[in-house]
Formats: sequence, structure tokens, C-alpha cells
Amino acid sequence: MTKERVAQFKEERKSLNEIVMKYSTNKIKKFYSLDARIYKEETLPKKIKELIGLAASLVLRCDDCISYHLSQCYEHDVTDAELEETIAIALIIGGSITIPHIRRAFAFWDQLKNGTAHGV
Amino acid sequence: MTKERVAQFKEERKSLNEIVMKYSTNKIKKFYSLDARIYKEETLPKKIKELIGLAASLVLRCDDCISYHLSQCYEHDVTDAELEETIAIALIIGGSITIPHIRRAFAFWDQLKNGTAHGV
Amino acid sequence: MTKERVAQFKEERKSLNEIVMKYSTNKIKKFYSLDARIYKEETLPKKIKELIGLAASLVLRCDDCISYHLSQCYEHDVTDAELEETIAIALIIGGSITIPHIRRAFAFWDQLKNGTAHGV
Amino acid sequence: MTKERVAQFKEERKSLNEIVMKYSTNKIKKFYSLDARIYKEETLPKKIKELIGLAASLVLRCDDCISYHLSQCYEHDVTDAELEETIAIALIIGGSITIPHIRRAFAFWDQLKNGTAHGV
Amino acid sequence: MTKERVAQFKEERKSLNEIVMKYSTNKIKKFYSLDARIYKEETLPKKIKELIGLAASLVLRCDDCISYHLSQCYEHDVTDAELEETIAIALIIGGSITIPHIRRAFAFWDQLKNGTAHGV
Amino acid sequence: MTKERVAQFKEERKSLNEIVMKYSTNKIKKFYSLDARIYKEETLPKKIKELIGLAASLVLRCDDCISYHLSQCYEHDVTDAELEETIAIALIIGGSITIPHIRRAFAFWDQLKNGTAHGV
Repeated sequence: MTKERVAQFKEERKSLNEIVMKYSTNKIKKFYSLDARIYKEETLPKKIKELIGLAASLVLRCDDCISYHLSQCYEHDVTDAELEETIAIALIIGGSITIPHIRRAFAFWDQLKNGTAHGV
Repeated sequence: MTKERVAQFKEERKSLNEIVMKYSTNKIKKFYSLDARIYKEETLPKKIKELIGLAASLVLRCDDCISYHLSQCYEHDVTDAELEETIAIALIIGGSITIPHIRRAFAFWDQLKNGTAHGV
Repeated sequence: MTKERVAQFKEERKSLNEIVMKYSTNKIKKFYSLDARIYKEETLPKKIKELIGLAASLVLRCDDCISYHLSQCYEHDVTDAELEETIAIALIIGGSITIPHIRRAFAFWDQLKNGTAHGV
Repeated sequence: MTKERVAQFKEERKSLNEIVMKYSTNKIKKFYSLDARIYKEETLPKKIKELIGLAASLVLRCDDCISYHLSQCYEHDVTDAELEETIAIALIIGGSITIPHIRRAFAFWDQLKNGTAHGV
Repeated sequence: MTKERVAQFKEERKSLNEIVMKYSTNKIKKFYSLDARIYKEETLPKKIKELIGLAASLVLRCDDCISYHLSQCYEHDVTDAELEETIAIALIIGGSITIPHIRRAFAFWDQLKNGTAHGV
Repeated sequence: MTKERVAQFKEERKSLNEIVMKYSTNKIKKFYSLDARIYKEETLPKKIKELIGLAASLVLRCDDCISYHLSQCYEHDVTDAELEETIAIALIIGGSITIPHIRRAFAFWDQLKNGTAHGV
């Protein structure tokens, strides 16, 4: 896992989303905007919503979704302990089949922390 | 959905777990005890761990797991708003395929609240 | 499978959706309305959209979703042959794990056809 | 779980398969016959094939498939220890989300053993 | 995503299928031939069968299957509008967890259209 | 698929597990040790446990888990015929959506056999 993985992930995501928008009508666009809105801070703090999103992405085993929620967790000051407790819940619920994703999740987290700053 | 559903759920769960234990060796038993331990309050409050467990169970679409976490959420004073926000995250991640489970989840929650007390 | 299953399915669905709406804010409601809109006839005929929804529900193995799309297929004059071809695709993609759902799907279809009319 | 569950399971399965056959063309029928053929004893003993089918059904969380493979395991003299070891593998791979199915699996096994004979 | 992705996808698929055939007996081969047969035009047009296969592959989140059905859709003159409507159904059913696959699907479609001809 | 894939797979797995351990408390560690223990030879031979693990990983479609169990199968002298029979069961249960993983599984097996020795 090279040092550039975080930046590369964000770049690719942005460029692919542009292609989605080129082909999408209002339906897919509405889904995207509802998706963004549901994670906004309400009664539950933003940080907790991102941990919930992370756990759901882990048990459904989607690396891109996991990386996205990890980067959001990092931006909202999730601690190592909070992350580990959330991942442990996902592991016990989802079983060993989630382990390859958990390995990549911790490696991505490690990379996020070793970047230079929040704006990475 | 009859009024007795909550009690019936707990009763059946208990009686089936006894059959599991009759056949289980140390392996399955260790899994059960690790499972219990992972939800204990640490840095994350118990309530948040249960909401995470609920969201993971919703996207994996397991009614019994959903009912269990809902009863734990109820015992730990999760509010309607916290529940709705968590379920909305599960819905957007997991899609409309989760809706039948979300219907039953809110119906079970309604039943939990209409029971007489925490000890239900 | 009793003769009343179709009516009972629709009744329960309606009554549970009322409970969902009681607890839902704008987020879940927006999801519901986007869901309804996506199945409206556009370039693809309504009937084809329902067959697509049916196949997706079959491979994801959700009985309630399958029953719903079957009732829509019936309302929009899907033929037995079109249904069987769609189910065969779902079976080959999703494997034998879908068979219990396919059994219940054909039984529900049989019941829809043996009802008195479109308004069942 | 009443004493009649095993017989009822076999009866319902048979009656539903008749409806499937009523609507099926050669495609679904070929799938059924390939399915039957793959479980026939070859290099791997029939018993092992059924344990493999059971584990796969457990991690995919399909109660009907689990019950079917359990009844086959019972017919082919799988021991309690072999069953428990197989279920432990499914549990660690599939996680706690499989537990409700594992509960019902052991209960069904218990019922198979408490029936009168192999011909149950 | 480089310009050669479509050709590379087809090349790798062919070369890997040769290894599968080297190890396969009649069982796996029969599955392959039943798979091919089920997508042949019958009452439903070939194009519709491919859209159904695409939607099922999207909700099950298999990139290779998605790419395969997209290339079939392209060969059978699916329009951008038909594709977008099908993908919108898969998105609402399967949820945001399908978005990374939908991004790659539109990018692959874009590449198919920018190739020189149907024989790409 | 280059000749070095097997060695590379083992190397990456080891290096990522070190990152997991850096962040893990006792909970994730206990899961890892229970996981190792469940595959130890008991009544069922080690070889059979690995075939069961392989089939479960195939239907859940996790390439890393599949590669791991394949390398264990190779170390414990699973034959081509035993492998093919197990994969055929996974294919019929899991459907054509497993085919891309089955392709990569046979390619990985081919590579394991073409390595120099058991210690690969």
C-alpha cells in the first residue's frame, strides 16, 4: 500500500462520479443528494453517523465505501479506540469473511494518520 | 402483530439457545462469549454500540438480530429520533430491499414502547 | 398457502407502512417517494421495470419484495412465459439458494391468477 | 417448534415444487436435475457433500436450504460432532448474523433425531 | 481507466475460462451451457434479458458480471436511457453500497461507446 | 496472472495483519485465535474443514478467503477431483455470480501446483 493511496482514492472517486453525472437523470441525482443529507449531523453527532456507516459498509464488504467512511471518520476526529470498537462489532456480526476488508481498513486508516494534515 | 410479540421473541430465543448449548463444544461457546463482550460499554457508550449493531443487522436483513438490538436500544434509552436517524442510514446504504425489515423494526419498536416497562 | 394470502400480504404491508410513517422524518419519506418514481414508465415499459425489480428481489432473496413485484407484474399483464424467463435468469445468477424463494414466488403467482380479477 | 415440523417441511417443499414444475420450461428443470446430480457421491463421500452444502447454506442464511441439508445429513449418518464442527466453521466465517439460523438448525436436528426412524 | 480496459477484460476472461475448463468435469460444463442458454432470446427480447442480468449483477455487486452484461447490452443496442433506467432500479433496490459498482459500470459503458465498433 | 502471485498474496496478508494487530485490542485478537482453532483437525479431517471453508468463501465471494483456503487445501493434499466437486457445489448453490471467483480460484490452484514445493 503506497503513500499516495488516499489521494488516489479521492481522485478516482471524483473522476468516476463525473461520468455517472454525465449519464444520470434526476433519479440517480436525487439518490445522491438524499445520501448526502442522511449523514448530516442531527440528534446523532456526525462522527457517530460515520461510524454507523463504516460498520454497515464493513459487514456488506465494500472497500470503496469503507475507505470513504474512514476518511470521514478521520476528518471528524474519531479516535483509534472508537474505530477499533466499531470494527470489532462489524467483525463479530459479519464474521471472518470481513477480515480481508478489515485488514485494508486499518491499513487505510494508518495511511490517513500518516498523511500531513486534515486536508489530505 | 400481536401485543405478545416481544415476550414471545425473548422466550423462543432463550429456548433455542438451550438447544444450541446442548450440542455446542467450547468453540461455539467461545464465540457466544466474545459476542457478548464486544457490545460492553468501552470508549463508545453501550447505546451507540447497539445502534451500530442495529444498522449492521438491518443492512444484512436479519429480523431476529434487528429485534434483539431494538430491545437493547430500548433498554438503554435510545430516543425515537436516534432510532430514525440510524434506520435512515441503513436504508440509504442497504436500499429498498431493507424496507420489509424496516417495517417490522418500527412495528417491534412500537410494541416495545407500548409494553408496560423496561423489564418487558 | 391459503387463498387469502394475497389480500393478507397487501393488508399487512399497508398497516406496517403506517407505523413507518409515524416514526419517519423527511429522509425516509423522500426515499419512499424516489422509490415509487423510479418504477414509473419511461423509455422502458412499466412491465419491464417490474420484471427487473422482480429479478433483483429474487437474487437478493426478499420474499416481501418478490411478492410486491409479482403483484405489480400481474397488474401489468406479464405473461407466464415472461415470468418464467425472468425467474430462470434469477435462478442461474443467484443459484439454488434462491429456489425456496422461487417456489414461493410461483405459488404466489398461482394465487394471483386464481383470484377473481385485477383489483384483487 | 412442534414435533411435526420435519414432516411439514417435507410436505410443503413437495407441494411447492409441483407448482414450480407446472410453470417451468426445460431451463428450470435442467437446473433442478444438475442440482441433484452435483450432490451424488463421487470422490467425496455423499456425507461430506451434504456437510459442504450445509455450511454454504448457513453462511448464505437460507433456513429451507439448511433444513434440507440437515435432513440429508441425518439420512447419511452424520454424527453430532461432525455437525457441530461444520456449524462452527459456518459461524466463524459468517459471523453472529448466522446465529438465528444456527439456533433453528440445531432445533431441527434435535427434531430429526427425536423422530422415529430414518424414514421420517 | 485506460482505453484498453474493454479488450483486456475480454482477454482475461477468455484465458481464465480455459483454466476452468482444464479442471472441470461435466458438472461445471453443464452449468456453463445452461447459463448461455437461459439468456437466448425467447418471449423476452435478448436486450431485455441482458438488462435483467445487469440489474441482478449490480445488486449482487459483481464487477466482472456487470462488465459482461454491459458489453452484451452494447452489442444489442441498448440506449443510454434504457441503461440509466435499469441502473436507477438497481440503485434504489440495492442502495448506496452499489454506487462504487455503478461508477465503474458507467465508466465501462463510456469506454464501450468510445471504442471503434461493435466488434470491439 | 504472474507466477509470483502466490508468494505476493502471502506477503501482503502478513504485512496487513501486522497493521491489524497494531490497532487491535483483545477483542479482535480473540476472534483471530478462535478462527485458527476452529479449523484444527477434530472428528473431521483438516482437509475436509478446509474444503468446507473454501465452499463457504466461494458462495460469499471473497477472493482473499478463497485463496487462503486454496493454499491450505494444497498443503493438505486435496486432489483436483475433490477440489472440482467442492467448487461444483459452491457453483450450483451460489449461482453464476460466483463464476468470476471460480475462474480466479482455478487459476490460483494452477499456480499453487506449478510452484516448486509445499513450502511455496
